[in-house]
This record gives sequence, structure tokens and C-alpha cells, in this order.
Amino acid sequence: MLSSAVCSFMLMKLGVNSGFSATNCVLASPAVLRRQEFLIRCLQSYSNQGDQKKLQEVKAMGEPNLEAAAENILRAITPTLDPSKHKGQAGKIAVIGGCREYTGAPYFAAITALKIGADLSHVFCTKDAAPVIKSYSPEIIVHPILEESYSVRDEDKKSILDKVLAEVDKWMERFDCLVVGPGLGRDPFLLDCVSEIMKHARQSNVPIVVDGDGLFLVTNCLDLVSGYPLAVLTPNVNEYKRLVQKVLRCEVNDDDAIGQLLSLAQQIGGVTILRKGKCDLITDGETVTSVSIYGSPRRCGGQGDILSGSVAVFTSWARQLVSSSDRNTSISPRNPTMLGCIAASTLLRKAASHAFNVKKRSTLTTDIIEYLGRSLDDISPVS
Amino acid sequence: MLSSAVCSFMLMKLGVNSGFSATNCVLASPAVLRRQEFLIRCLQSYSNQGDQKKLQEVKAMGEPNLEAAAENILRAITPTLDPSKHKGQAGKIAVIGGCREYTGAPYFAAITALKIGADLSHVFCTKDAAPVIKSYSPEIIVHPILEESYSVRDEDKKSILDKVLAEVDKWMERFDCLVVGPGLGRDPFLLDCVSEIMKHARQSNVPIVVDGDGLFLVTNCLDLVSGYPLAVLTPNVNEYKRLVQKVLRCEVNDDDAIGQLLSLAQQIGGVTILRKGKCDLITDGETVTSVSIYGSPRRCGGQGDILSGSVAVFTSWARQLVSSSDRNTSISPRNPTMLGCIAASTLLRKAASHAFNVKKRSTLTTDIIEYLGRSLDDISPVS
Repeated sequence: MLSSAVCSFMLMKLGVNSGFSATNCVLASPAVLRRQEFLIRCLQSYSNQGDQKKLQEVKAMGEPNLEAAAENILRAITPTLDPSKHKGQAGKIAVIGGCREYTGAPYFAAITALKIGADLSHVFCTKDAAPVIKSYSPEIIVHPILEESYSVRDEDKKSILDKVLAEVDKWMERFDCLVVGPGLGRDPFLLDCVSEIMKHARQSNVPIVVDGDGLFLVTNCLDLVSGYPLAVLTPNVNEYKRLVQKVLRCEVNDDDAIGQLLSLAQQIGGVTILRKGKCDLITDGETVTSVSIYGSPRRCGGQGDILSGSVAVFTSWARQLVSSSDRNTSISPRNPTMLGCIAASTLLRKAASHAFNVKKRSTLTTDIIEYLGRSLDDISPVS
Repeated sequence: MLSSAVCSFMLMKLGVNSGFSATNCVLASPAVLRRQEFLIRCLQSYSNQGDQKKLQEVKAMGEPNLEAAAENILRAITPTLDPSKHKGQAGKIAVIGGCREYTGAPYFAAITALKIGADLSHVFCTKDAAPVIKSYSPEIIVHPILEESYSVRDEDKKSILDKVLAEVDKWMERFDCLVVGPGLGRDPFLLDCVSEIMKHARQSNVPIVVDGDGLFLVTNCLDLVSGYPLAVLTPNVNEYKRLVQKVLRCEVNDDDAIGQLLSLAQQIGGVTILRKGKCDLITDGETVTSVSIYGSPRRCGGQGDILSGSVAVFTSWARQLVSSSDRNTSISPRNPTMLGCIAASTLLRKAASHAFNVKKRSTLTTDIIEYLGRSLDDISPVS
């Protein structure tokens, strides 16, 4: 029932969306037909899961029209642009990631934050990764401070750890959110440093979005996020499987997908979990929301980094909104990390859909990033 | 009264601007309406400051229509393009900045100079920063000559300082303007070198635009610019606060914004100060001009670097104009650094407005730079 309702709404929306840009206009007619067929196949997810009881719980938390509800949340938390504001007030984000092996992921997360509307985006990465990440864009501030084991002698580890922490601490209080994990790698010494950075972020009440190798770290050391309500985990299929095995000591059970997700968040002390999939399921251990807006069938690497960068910005904005007593009357849910996840999932899916409409099978993460601004403006126009 | 006059003019201009590009045309109708509402809110600045007496002084220095006056200045100082001229005559700019941590800022300032019309743009930066800045653009000449403390032994400092100075001195006489500060960082040894470079520039009568960490340096060592009429300081909110505290030994008082700014410039011996804000206030200690043309509500990092690069080019051009006796009959003010600041502030705001019209919330500094050329040609078409 849910999927057919959303499905009908989506088809209606498609007609409207065909006016998105001149280019889309030209492509609209055949593309809409193909997308309609695709949608009907795609939006069967929940009704096939044999989980009607839990499904009702999810439905009860949203409005009947889930897409409209998600867009309302995105609109509500996106701050107005006001010329009296100064640099930094729209958000300062830091990504902890980028090593000798991986440089694209932290770039995607950091540039996403800027493209959505954050004012400043930093990356803290290894010395090898920094020049490459810098070269992708002059807009990102890249700090080459992390070290991997291969370049550190055992006797120097303590002093280097202290130096890394001192460098990050100079900035910590200024950040509205940290993204830990994109392109982080799994070097033991580097992960030790990142564990300490997470502890400091937590002491400073800075929200932490954990993805990629950050989830590897956290799964092996749950105390880093356990009981921290400003932590957000964004696992994909495999990362979720490892989390469930470690925390619930069982296998993933999709017949009780929602119950299991709720248990998982509760067991980790009320962190927010965004379980990525055909439908994104989001919970803080109390409520569950699903976002199943039509996105793209392309599964090119890097889309998770767009999501984590987006969650960081929207969570920062939602925190500002929820903490300003005069503006928080009607928004639901009230948890800023839940709001941030719902908005981020919605925006990524919209942008991916637009990019796929134009680029088809050759759609890359960079293409999706280029549609973030337009997709956000479609939902929440600047005034 | 001032704000409503400028406001009316701005609304008239908006109708014209909607034809700026094909993309803008499509977006014009709703966008123009939203911008009109936005402008009416935005352009109240001065009348709300309870500073009517000082406001009259500011008005007396411009024409009733401040936007037209600013555009006239920009037009007057922009040199004609003449095929008989040779490379370098339209300006040779050098940016002193770029270190291990920051590479985007010096790039933005240097590429801005070229995009406005300078012939040559140099960056003097650290060895770590140079390959990255070079990778942003093959158009910029990047000198990897500066050193940070971490790579210099104490006993080598004197010889390295001498070497750095010798390298810069080889070029100094050729430069029409120096920009000191974008992405400079705060390393003590590096700042020692930059102090010496500034002294040499001053000896050679080369104008110096000081921004970012250059302002940190100058605030702690006012003698570097004190009494130098070719120095321009371009502080943002926080940098201005520190300058006022250091020089006037009091807090910023926006009820006497203009009086305080005049005092500050006078106390530093007649340097020119461009105080960045919702309205840019510009003074050389004698006159004050404000530029409040509609720009963009985006506060992404890097816009200050566009401004400093622009001030450098326009100041060079204004100097040429003022010193050529046959062409300086009508221009006012006469101080080339004042003229440079007014033109730069005007152009940045125009370009930011165009970029924001298209890119909305996802506007980045790179997008604004792409509109510098068109914005300049709108005001001062090549002939």
C-alpha cells in the first residue's frame, strides 16, 4: 500500500520535474516513460519484505505522502540566505580522511558540503594525500597532518599522536560537524589518531558522521560513539552486516529489518543510523523513517561520500534550527541527526535522478555533485 | 534616504540584468521578484546605523547615485586595450602567500588579477604549496621560495632569509602591485621573511594590498605599513576588530563606524582601509566611500581573495591614470588606492550577483571568478 501510494505521487512529480532545465526538457518525453516503468519496478521494496507490522510503525512516523514530508523537512532546516550573515554562519565542516591509497572520497564529501551551501570545508588527511586532494579544488582547505605506520617509528608514535591532536584541536571548536571515514584506510596508527580525534570531538559536542573505514573503526571500538546522540552511522550493506554481527551477535534479518535496526541503534546507545539501500532506513532508536524517493540505478563509487558530506551540513543546520526556540514549533522528528539524514538522503536521490536523466550509464559521482545545487533550489528556493 | 535611492536604482538595473545570459533569461521572472524583495531588506544598512551625521560626510564624497559613481570610477581607470601595447603594460601582480596548509587563497587572488585583465600574475609561496598552486592553472607563475620553520634549522635562518629576499628582489621592480597575505599562514619564520619583502616593496614604491594572515602580521607590526600611502588593508569583521583593538585601544563601535574607520586610517598614517561587510567602507583617512551594490548572500570562503587580487589590478591601473597628466582631469577621489578599492568592491559584487543568480546556494568562489570578465565588460566594454 505504501509503495503504490508513493509510486503514484512519484509519477505525478515526474511530469512537473521535466521542466527542470532546458536540457532536461528536450530529453523529457522518452525519459519519463522509461523512468515510469523503472519506478513501478523499483518502488515495491517494503511490501515484499513481509514486515507489515513494523511497516505500520514507520508509516505512523511520517505523513501519508513521504516524499512531500521529506521535502518539507529539507525546506524547514535549510537556513535563509541573509546578507547580514558573515563567513562561517552557514556551516563549517571537516572531513577526517584521505590517505596514500584514497583521495577521491574525502574530496567528494568536502566539496559536497560547499555545493550544498556550507561556507567552509576542511579535510584532515595524510601528507601523501594532501597535495592530490588540494589539486582537485582550490575551494577546500586541506591539512596534511595524519601519518600512516609506514612513515612512523614506534618510539615517535606518542609525540606524533600528540602533534596531530594539537593540530586538530586548534580548529575543533570552530567546526559544526565532522565526517569521519571517507578514504581513511585501515592503517592501525592512523586509526589510533582518528579515535583520539573522535574523543575530542565528542568532548566538544561536535556531531560526528561516520562512514566507510570510519565504520570499520567504530565497529571494532563501539565506545567511540556509544551513547553519543550526535553520532550518525551511515552503513552500506556490508558495513551494516558487520555492525549487526558485532553488536547484535546475529545475522541481518530482512524479515525484521526495522526491528533489527531499532535494536541496533538502541544497543549503541541512541546513535542515529542511516542504513543505505534501495530505500534508506533512518533511526535514532526511537523512531524510524524511510526515504525511498526515486534516485538512480547507477552504483558508481563515491555516492556514499556525497551522502556523508550532506548529512554533515544538514545536521548542522537542523541543530541551529532546533536550538533556536522561536523557529522549532512544527518540525518533526526533533532530533537534528534524524532531520539531517532525512534531508541528505532526499537531496542525494534527487540529484542522482537528475544526473542520471542526463548522463545515463556514464553518470559519475562528480555529475551528481553538479546537480546538488539545482536539486536543493528546486525544493528550497533561495529567497 | 540614501538606501532608498540606491535601492530604486538597483531594482531598475535588475530588469536589465535578466538578459545577462540565456540561462538567466529562463530563471529571470521568479528570481527577479525574489531578489527585489531581498534587496529592499538588504539595502537598509546605513540608515539603520544611527550615524546620520557621518553618513552625510560619506554622501558628500560621492554622487547621489552611488552605484553609477562607482561604475564611472571603474570605467575611468580601466585602460583601453590597444594592440600597440606590449606584455606587462596592463599590469604585473605578485601574490605573497601559499603554504603547506593553504593553497586555494593565493590561487584565487592571482587568477583574479589575470581574469580582470592583468598581463602577468606571480605567486611567491612555500615549496610545499607551489606544485599544488601550479596545478590549479598553467597561467600563473609560481615561485617556490618561501620556507616554514619546520623545514629550517635555526643556524640556517639568516642565509635562507637572504636567499628569499634576493629571489623576490630580482622581480620587485617589475611588479605594479603586491598582494600580501592570501593563504600565508602564521609561521614565525615565514612571516619574518614576508616582513622583509614588504620593506623592500615599500622602498621600491610598489603598492601593497594586505589581507588574511598579512593583516595578522601587520596588526602585530604596524610599522610595516604605517605612513605608507600605497598600502591597502582589506580587513573582514574579525580582522577589523583586532586592528581597532590594537591601534585605537577600544572595541568596534558601529554607532560611530565611519568616525572610527577614519581615525584608524589616520592613526596608521594614511593607509587605505577597505572594511569588508554588508556595505564595504573605504577610507584613506581623509574621505570615506561606501560600496553597497547588491552582491550575493553566499559567504563561502575565498571571496576576500578575489577582492585583494582585484584591488591590486585596479590600484595599478588607477596609478597609471592619475600619473598621466592628460587624463586625470575629472576623476574623484584622486588617491589611486581609494579608486582601486572602489572599483574592486564594485566588480566583486557585480560578479557575485551574476554567479549567485545562476548557481544559487551552491555558488563557490570559482563560479564568481568566472563572472569577473563579463561583469567588467558590462561596465567598461572593450573598445
